[in-house]
Amino acid sequence: MADPITELVGLLSRLPGVGERTAARLAYHVLGGSPDYAHALGQALSEIHGRVRRCERCKNYTSESVCRICLDPRRDPHSICVVARPQDLAALERGSAFRGHYYVLHALLSPLDGIGPDALDFASLLTRIREDAVTEVIVATPLSVEGEATALFLAQELRALGVRCTRIASGLPHGGELEYTDQVTLARALDGRREL
Amino acid sequence: MADPITELVGLLSRLPGVGERTAARLAYHVLGGSPDYAHALGQALSEIHGRVRRCERCKNYTSESVCRICLDPRRDPHSICVVARPQDLAALERGSAFRGHYYVLHALLSPLDGIGPDALDFASLLTRIREDAVTEVIVATPLSVEGEATALFLAQELRALGVRCTRIASGLPHGGELEYTDQVTLARALDGRREL
Repeated sequence: MADPITELVGLLSRLPGVGERTAARLAYHVLGGSPDYAHALGQALSEIHGRVRRCERCKNYTSESVCRICLDPRRDPHSICVVARPQDLAALERGSAFRGHYYVLHALLSPLDGIGPDALDFASLLTRIREDAVTEVIVATPLSVEGEATALFLAQELRALGVRCTRIASGLPHGGELEYTDQVTLARALDGRREL
Repeated sequence: MADPITELVGLLSRLPGVGERTAARLAYHVLGGSPDYAHALGQALSEIHGRVRRCERCKNYTSESVCRICLDPRRDPHSICVVARPQDLAALERGSAFRGHYYVLHALLSPLDGIGPDALDFASLLTRIREDAVTEVIVATPLSVEGEATALFLAQELRALGVRCTRIASGLPHGGELEYTDQVTLARALDGRREL
C-alpha cells in the first residue's frame, strides 16, 4: 500500500497549476488542520459529479434538471448567447450585461485534434432555436483559433436557417494601452470601429 | 441547500495560497474531468486524517504506530534532530545529510500568541533522551523569532540535564550573493565563521 501522504500529494499535483511542491504544501496543510475540514472538502469533491448535471435546455451546470437562468421569466428567450464552457457563462453573469438565455457547447472545433462539429451537440442548439423562436445568436466563444473556427461554423449554419448570428467584439480591453497591445488586437480594434 | 459548485469553491479557497478565482478554476477543472479522479481525490482527502497518525516515538506522520525512521537499525539513536513540523523532517530526509533520529514538536514557542512550553510535549522528548541515552540534540527549528525562542528554551532545559545541545548553522545559502543578503544573515555568517 502506498504511503497515504504520497498518494494524496500525487492526486493533488494533477490539479492545474499545482506542482509537486505546492501539492505537498496543501497536503501538509490539510493534515495539520481540522479533520472536519479535510472530510468536508473530500466529501464535496467525491460528490461533485453526482450533484452537478447539465441543464436540459442550455447544458450549463445545475443541480436541477433545468437551470435557474432557463427558468427565469424575466430573461429574454429569443436571444441566445453561445459559450464554450460553464465558467465563461459564469463570467458573463457576473457582469449581468446580458439578459437573454445561454447555450454551453462544452467543446470547440479543433480539426487538428480531431474535434469536428459532432462534438458540439449542434442539433440540440437547433431544437432550442426552433422551439423558442430565437431571433439572435450571440457567439461568445473565446478569441482563440478554436473559438474563431467554432464561431465561423455556427455563423454559416445559422445564416442558412435565416437566424441572425453575431460575434462579441474584439478590441482593446478596458484601460488598455495601445503601446502594449498586440498587432492582431489593434487591427481588429480598427476594423471594428464605430461612429462617435 | 447551497449550490454544490459554490460550496466546493468555498472549501477549496480555504487552502493556503488558493484565492476565490483559483478555487473556481480548480472546481471547474475537477467537474470537467473524470468522475474517477474527483472521487479518488475526495476519498484521499476524507481519509487522510484517519490513515495518518503520529509516530509514538518521534511524532512524525506515519501509517504505523512507529515510523520507518525510528525502526531503521542503521540509524544512530543517540543523536536526535528536533524539528517544528513533519515537512521540515521531510526536507532534511531528502538530502540524507542526517543519519540519526528525529523529534517533531508540532509547535513553536510563541509567547505573544499564548503558546508556551506546554504546547511542545517536552516531557516525551525527555523520555526519549533518557531511554535512548541520547548524547546530542540538534535543534533544527526555523531561523524565525519563534524558532529561535524554541531553540533557546530547549538549550536551557537540556544543558541542565547535561545533554549536548546544538543549533543548525545560520549563514548564506548555497550560491548566495553577499550583495543581496540581509544584514542579520551577514552578521550571523561572520559570527559563525570557521577555520579554513
